[in-house]
Amino acid sequence: MRKESRWIRWIKWIVIVTVLFLLGFCIGWFAKPSNTQNHKDSSHYLKDFLGEMKADKIREHLRKFTQLPHLAGTEQNLKYAEQIMKEWQMFGLDSVEMVPYDVLLSYPNESQPNYISIVDHLGNEIFNTSLAEPVPQGYEDISNIVPPYSAFSAKGQPEGDLVYVNYGRTEDFSQLQRVMGINVTGKIVIVRYGKIFRGNKVKNAVLAGAKGIIMFSDPADYWADGIQPYPDGWNLPGRGAQRGNVLNLNGAGDPLTPGYPAKEYTYRFSPEDGVGLPNIPVHPIGFHDAILLLNNMGGEIPPNNWKGALNVSYRIGPGFTDEFKSQKVRMNIHTNNQVTRIYNVIGKIRGAQEPDRYVILGGHRDAWVFGGIDPMSGAAVVHETVRSAGRLLSTGWRPRRTIIFASWDAEEFGLLGSTEWAEDNARLLQERAVAYINADSAIEGMYTLRVDCTPSLHTLAYDITKQIPSPEEGEEGVSLYESWHKRDNWTNDRDAPRISKLGSGSDFEAYFIRLGIASGRARYTKNAKTERYSSYPVYHSVYETFEIVEKFYDPSFKRLQAVAQVRGALIFLLADSQLLPLDVNEYADSLRKYAQSIAQLAQKNLRAMEMYKVSFDSLFSAVENFTVAARDFHERLQTLNKADPLQLRIMNDQLMYLERAFIDPLGLPGRPFYRHVIFAPSSHNKYAGESFPGIYDALFDIENSADPAKAWEEVKRQISIAAFTVHAAAMTLTPPA
Amino acid sequence: MRKESRWIRWIKWIVIVTVLFLLGFCIGWFAKPSNTQNHKDSSHYLKDFLGEMKADKIREHLRKFTQLPHLAGTEQNLKYAEQIMKEWQMFGLDSVEMVPYDVLLSYPNESQPNYISIVDHLGNEIFNTSLAEPVPQGYEDISNIVPPYSAFSAKGQPEGDLVYVNYGRTEDFSQLQRVMGINVTGKIVIVRYGKIFRGNKVKNAVLAGAKGIIMFSDPADYWADGIQPYPDGWNLPGRGAQRGNVLNLNGAGDPLTPGYPAKEYTYRFSPEDGVGLPNIPVHPIGFHDAILLLNNMGGEIPPNNWKGALNVSYRIGPGFTDEFKSQKVRMNIHTNNQVTRIYNVIGKIRGAQEPDRYVILGGHRDAWVFGGIDPMSGAAVVHETVRSAGRLLSTGWRPRRTIIFASWDAEEFGLLGSTEWAEDNARLLQERAVAYINADSAIEGMYTLRVDCTPSLHTLAYDITKQIPSPEEGEEGVSLYESWHKRDNWTNDRDAPRISKLGSGSDFEAYFIRLGIASGRARYTKNAKTERYSSYPVYHSVYETFEIVEKFYDPSFKRLQAVAQVRGALIFLLADSQLLPLDVNEYADSLRKYAQSIAQLAQKNLRAMEMYKVSFDSLFSAVENFTVAARDFHERLQTLNKADPLQLRIMNDQLMYLERAFIDPLGLPGRPFYRHVIFAPSSHNKYAGESFPGIYDALFDIENSADPAKAWEEVKRQISIAAFTVHAAAMTLTPPA
Repeated sequence: MRKESRWIRWIKWIVIVTVLFLLGFCIGWFAKPSNTQNHKDSSHYLKDFLGEMKADKIREHLRKFTQLPHLAGTEQNLKYAEQIMKEWQMFGLDSVEMVPYDVLLSYPNESQPNYISIVDHLGNEIFNTSLAEPVPQGYEDISNIVPPYSAFSAKGQPEGDLVYVNYGRTEDFSQLQRVMGINVTGKIVIVRYGKIFRGNKVKNAVLAGAKGIIMFSDPADYWADGIQPYPDGWNLPGRGAQRGNVLNLNGAGDPLTPGYPAKEYTYRFSPEDGVGLPNIPVHPIGFHDAILLLNNMGGEIPPNNWKGALNVSYRIGPGFTDEFKSQKVRMNIHTNNQVTRIYNVIGKIRGAQEPDRYVILGGHRDAWVFGGIDPMSGAAVVHETVRSAGRLLSTGWRPRRTIIFASWDAEEFGLLGSTEWAEDNARLLQERAVAYINADSAIEGMYTLRVDCTPSLHTLAYDITKQIPSPEEGEEGVSLYESWHKRDNWTNDRDAPRISKLGSGSDFEAYFIRLGIASGRARYTKNAKTERYSSYPVYHSVYETFEIVEKFYDPSFKRLQAVAQVRGALIFLLADSQLLPLDVNEYADSLRKYAQSIAQLAQKNLRAMEMYKVSFDSLFSAVENFTVAARDFHERLQTLNKADPLQLRIMNDQLMYLERAFIDPLGLPGRPFYRHVIFAPSSHNKYAGESFPGIYDALFDIENSADPAKAWEEVKRQISIAAFTVHAAAMTLTPPA
Repeated sequence: MRKESRWIRWIKWIVIVTVLFLLGFCIGWFAKPSNTQNHKDSSHYLKDFLGEMKADKIREHLRKFTQLPHLAGTEQNLKYAEQIMKEWQMFGLDSVEMVPYDVLLSYPNESQPNYISIVDHLGNEIFNTSLAEPVPQGYEDISNIVPPYSAFSAKGQPEGDLVYVNYGRTEDFSQLQRVMGINVTGKIVIVRYGKIFRGNKVKNAVLAGAKGIIMFSDPADYWADGIQPYPDGWNLPGRGAQRGNVLNLNGAGDPLTPGYPAKEYTYRFSPEDGVGLPNIPVHPIGFHDAILLLNNMGGEIPPNNWKGALNVSYRIGPGFTDEFKSQKVRMNIHTNNQVTRIYNVIGKIRGAQEPDRYVILGGHRDAWVFGGIDPMSGAAVVHETVRSAGRLLSTGWRPRRTIIFASWDAEEFGLLGSTEWAEDNARLLQERAVAYINADSAIEGMYTLRVDCTPSLHTLAYDITKQIPSPEEGEEGVSLYESWHKRDNWTNDRDAPRISKLGSGSDFEAYFIRLGIASGRARYTKNAKTERYSSYPVYHSVYETFEIVEKFYDPSFKRLQAVAQVRGALIFLLADSQLLPLDVNEYADSLRKYAQSIAQLAQKNLRAMEMYKVSFDSLFSAVENFTVAARDFHERLQTLNKADPLQLRIMNDQLMYLERAFIDPLGLPGRPFYRHVIFAPSSHNKYAGESFPGIYDALFDIENSADPAKAWEEVKRQISIAAFTVHAAAMTLTPPA
């Protein structure tokens, strides 16, 4: 017994010792701080973040920031900037600053209004277009409403015969000159708005030799059937007209300081050497005035696709019918360009683990008048996003990476605020920016979601919309994804909601196409299949008020709330996920489609391709190479030890820099600031994004080239550049050593 | 007693429990693997690494790789590449590969030799220059020795009068035309080698309208007093001549594929559209032949600084004296350009912790003939460095970052191998390269060390030379630093060995000036104060043999050993230090000096500066801003928690990307591949690095400009770009958020 007892005591002792040791060991093990942030699952923070965004608050923000006109460079737009800065500070951002630049803007001359006349043979003005739009009810006493004008128009009073050139597209001018045999040298052209960016219309008119250009909003393009004009509905009244800049900047930013931020010490070109400024007068009118200019036009009746919906014949001219032959059209344009101070507001939340990784949510603040839709529906959404992020910060959350919120100025004058800031911060951005999410108008229709983004963001866009409820009435319990999917399925080859390429025409341009930062945008849109007007009818008119949103576009403000949640979830997950939510397999899939599609476009000239030995093999082989590299990369991600902060950072860097790999430092031919080899605006329409734009433009030029052998050489050169770029991008996905 | 006993037992128990717990805790604490690599002090590894580099081995390597001529594009140069690849593999690198490109090279026509004649009035050749250099003893049976020629010369047989234009510099042509009133249109110019890169002489001749250019080695520039010509000494024999390319690439790499790697699928421009190819015949001769061409020249006697050391009058022409007036000079040049395959050898040691950070040691392998000095003295040093690194790997060492060794091809034809590889890997390099150390000729004199590097490497260069012994006889126990310091103290304003700016003319160009990777080079050099010849006398001649090094330049091979240790220590510490050994305060100091010096240069035109309101204030203010940012950065480094791998990486990234911040994506005016705003070769001499080259060139142009107002506008623009770039670089050093 005694022996046994001793044995038992020994065993007891050993058990106690072991237990105590293990206890100590475990406490030691877990007490030691780990360098790998034991990343708390951030999904409950995401839920709080999205849940905090309120429709009513968005309504309030929109109401607050659409009271007064706030054109870029005006006092009121500075006041709104100051207010936004103050409120973002109150919301709890770590820092908010105002960043000024001095850029070239353009305003009508207050003492000499712009208008267009019909003059008789004595030079008397027998008809003048209206000097302003009728101001909507409730806004009659508001001053500083800028009348419709074309910003950066040349000054002048050209007089001559009108020629009607449909939408003013490259193909319209080509048809006019080649098929109809009409030369517009020394004429004033009149074109309807729509289809392409207005700056491209102006460039085409200049190239064709016109001495002035008038643009009008045709009901065929800016009128929805069965809808009343504002204020009884959301159609454009006959006396409404579309403002807008008519530059051809190709991404240069401020015309006088291309490539460099427009600071106080910055060298400025003289206006004659400025980038993209038209050298002829340009002016926009509504359809009420257009009828009177078009009514007596002579010349031939054009083909049906040149005819709009006005009760006129759309004869192309030149000039009026015999009866009115002695009458001419005179443009009276006195618009001034002037260097003016603008203000971006930049707010930041410092990242906890990777402060040197930036996720940007940026949208503009300046508006042509009140900006009810463009841009304040977007700015209100950003405001609410900031408010909600501030609330989350106050509960102890801090994102892994730095989030930057931007309220850009002077977007309407050529994306100036965002481009100057990108130029100012180019070094930081190219090394540190993970993604840029754009926040222009959050709504342009009442139908469903619209997302345009780089392919690596596709999967994230789908994932987050599955977590956001549909804002549509009668769709309780339905996700935004389902609602969107039902309304806008991609194409036959994929059962998923449509996501489009990014074009241009908003502030993501410098970030995506110049710097190669993964970018995306989201908004509520119209039904593209049935609603054929460009943008939305009251676009850039005085009728873009708070009320048009409240009465027609989004009375419950739930659509804007949904857009806020989409934009917010994008930046949240990009900033806070341990592993960046970018899908490189999606990029591979897209590249394959684009390569097929550009090769198919070239096939139209099959005989020439054979003659000049043009082959897309190198491009297809590069895409294949990329596809394999992308697949292997995702496989390696499976075995990544996320607890190792360096290994994680290395793979995140590969994900982040993938978009950068598509940047060609030499730029596209003649467009040094458009450097993305996969995506850039078409040379013929800034709004439309083309894939493989270098090849696309080279193919486009074949038709107009006097030297087809040389033109095909350029196609071959562009294919080679595209193939190299895709190979180079694939290389960035392989193991780094 | 019993109670006490129980108490004591309790105390015993508590002590035991506590001790066991603490034991467990400690074991648990220390057993847990730490994510921060407890970085072993790598200094003993460095000592082993440097100690392993042997003079005898370098001698062996040099002997082995100088047996046969190995011009770029020849079979022998491929054989050496294969041998290097094999030996690097044997030495133990993780991977070695051969990377081919197909670039434009240029060779003499084997059946039609190049030469220059004097022809009489009947066109008979009454004197011909030699077709080859006399081959040195021991090499008589060697084939494939390419005769002296100017690579990429145009073909042709121009005939005309000679005009002597000194060194063929911009200022020489200017003096000829403006002061001496001589127009060289339709003439053949003859210039002496030296002072500037030969390609610049050719460009100047083309601009001046010459129809051919002859270059000769004057003893004034290629002859050391009291030294015998080879083989009895290291001077250039009278029949020796300097080969070399005469391109004006401005960093483009392969002339037919500027901006893109010359791969199989790459689009090639036609030769007429190639970059930098001269359109006139060019040919080099020795001074023996030069005497005969210059001897009978007529025209005026030039100023003394145009006179070399030949026993001729150096009359400038045009043409011969009256007596020989009917005689003309005819060039017979049949050199062919042809696309040829070249091979880089790339070897890697994978980094243990940061495989995606690259430190590169690269030098060329191709030689004009044997390459005894250029480049094999450098290649032998690289070879020994690789061998030593392999030994260290076998002892268990592995560097923190990846090391890349490169044996470049076709450097002599325009830095082609290194530039094509940089183009091929541009995305990886700009995101991942920490530094590039160049390894061309390791010796060009017998006096002391020469280091050219970016300012942030100054401190490292000083630190390591203090750890390396002087190779000079009688300096046992003296450090290389002391030996160097004694022989070449910087300037009055600093008591330290001189370090110079990087110019161009070797393979670091694409890495430093195009991509903005911190770069440096080190070699043994002559006494710049007393030895006035350019490079070294036998430069690019057949007399660059193994023997010239063994007999004259470095009989003990200790100088080459010292260079190997300098280059080796640079890459070792850049690759293996936890914190990158880059000193941004040095960059600030250098920027201040450069700003003062360029402002001073401008002051020469004080009145014009006032008239055109030219000020350097913005640049000085930017430099001040940079200085503060650099100081603050180094202060923050003091408190950096190096145990936190992310914090360490973030600051290392700031250090790495600083050099990148000086890159302007738009490039210097007209030179898209020279993008470094602080350092680039002068437009007037590729060899010379200028600080603030944009401003420098703009100031240079003032003197020749027909429109000074416009020329001064360009100066202002360049000052603004420089100021912006320095501000932008400063921003990269501030806390990232």
